[in-house]
Amino acid sequence: MSGRLIGVGVGPGDPELITLKAVRVLAGADVVAHFAKAGRAGTGRTIAAQHVPPDAEELALWFPVTTEIAKHEPAYRDAISSFYDSAAAAVAARLEAGRVVAVICEGDPLFYGSFMHLHARLAARYPTEIVAGVSGMAGSWSAAGLPIAQGDDVFTVLPATLAECELARRLRETDAIVIMKLGRNLPKVRRALAQAGRLCDAIYVERATMPGAAVIALADKVDDGAPYFAIVLVPGFEQRP
Amino acid sequence: MSGRLIGVGVGPGDPELITLKAVRVLAGADVVAHFAKAGRAGTGRTIAAQHVPPDAEELALWFPVTTEIAKHEPAYRDAISSFYDSAAAAVAARLEAGRVVAVICEGDPLFYGSFMHLHARLAARYPTEIVAGVSGMAGSWSAAGLPIAQGDDVFTVLPATLAECELARRLRETDAIVIMKLGRNLPKVRRALAQAGRLCDAIYVERATMPGAAVIALADKVDDGAPYFAIVLVPGFEQRP
Repeated sequence: MSGRLIGVGVGPGDPELITLKAVRVLAGADVVAHFAKAGRAGTGRTIAAQHVPPDAEELALWFPVTTEIAKHEPAYRDAISSFYDSAAAAVAARLEAGRVVAVICEGDPLFYGSFMHLHARLAARYPTEIVAGVSGMAGSWSAAGLPIAQGDDVFTVLPATLAECELARRLRETDAIVIMKLGRNLPKVRRALAQAGRLCDAIYVERATMPGAAVIALADKVDDGAPYFAIVLVPGFEQRP
Repeated sequence: MSGRLIGVGVGPGDPELITLKAVRVLAGADVVAHFAKAGRAGTGRTIAAQHVPPDAEELALWFPVTTEIAKHEPAYRDAISSFYDSAAAAVAARLEAGRVVAVICEGDPLFYGSFMHLHARLAARYPTEIVAGVSGMAGSWSAAGLPIAQGDDVFTVLPATLAECELARRLRETDAIVIMKLGRNLPKVRRALAQAGRLCDAIYVERATMPGAAVIALADKVDDGAPYFAIVLVPGFEQRP
């Protein structure tokens, strides 16, 4: 008799943007797992703090410290892949013991989240459920009060890691845009937006729905400092009155 | 002293996928508005039924019956535009009277929703807030247990109204895809997916997270019947183990 794996979306940051279902599922979990960087409180765990049952086993899945290995190195890929293998093994051990394991996921579990690496390793072997969550990007355009896409708009999420000309090309071809993974890519993103004629409409958002949130027109942001999780929004909805 | 306009996302369909914030905001509203087709219960209103305070004024915003006018006709556009004008006027009257007006929105308020037409007409004139919600597409990939996008994936939402060759071109250029507004466009969408070599990966989802939900590989769906709100998902996350 095996347990159940549940990926639980806890939303973009504001603890009130968690769903009733996430609250109920966390309350009934035997084991509550979360991902975090070594030495830091996981953002998802912080968001869901009030809803983790005191008698549940907590399982922190610490990312290995890999900053000394460049991302394109095979060694990085190997390190991260072994980490997900052992995280999946730790979760599987609880599932084999018949326990209900809830994995806390920032935003939505199946949209650019670490949980997907557990899902890929475990969902075929154990009963698995997903509790959808409010995405980080929805938190961002809501905090900015920015209607993002409407009607027949094409909406695209672009990683800022793309080459500048590729970013510019895609920016020209889509109505509504979210650019993720800014960090040190911000100067390149600015240039691509300018090339595509979209810089004036671009809004920079940092820590949306959380303390210290910042929303500013990108053209008005004087420095190029940006955390990795900051995003740029370019709205569609051109026919707005 | 004017009131406050609040767009409240109530999620994709399952009443448990509403957020704690939406529940609190609805409980404190003087007026609860929702969009609906004439003669039908609005889906958003049904989702939020338990949370509408009994003493709140309810304001149903009925879409005009415009099925006899083709969508590309200027007459259609005029009819729909006057409808949004009068809906905004009805809401503005309550705001002028100092009332808090919560507008129920299926999914997320600023992502392809009717509320955006009120927002465009009122947000510059009255204090306005947005409560982000779980989107319909997140409900769909969660119900399907389908990891949609990961890492450096480009993610695109395409309306099925695009021309077949344009759909095929964009399907070839993106990793993860959501195709919306299926309805009578399904045969065209199938052909575009086949042209782009993506038909085998496409999943058809109908009424996700609601009673009567259907999830099926599009290649296995024998008929071409599809409601307007059904969607097709094509996952990215190619490097999954």
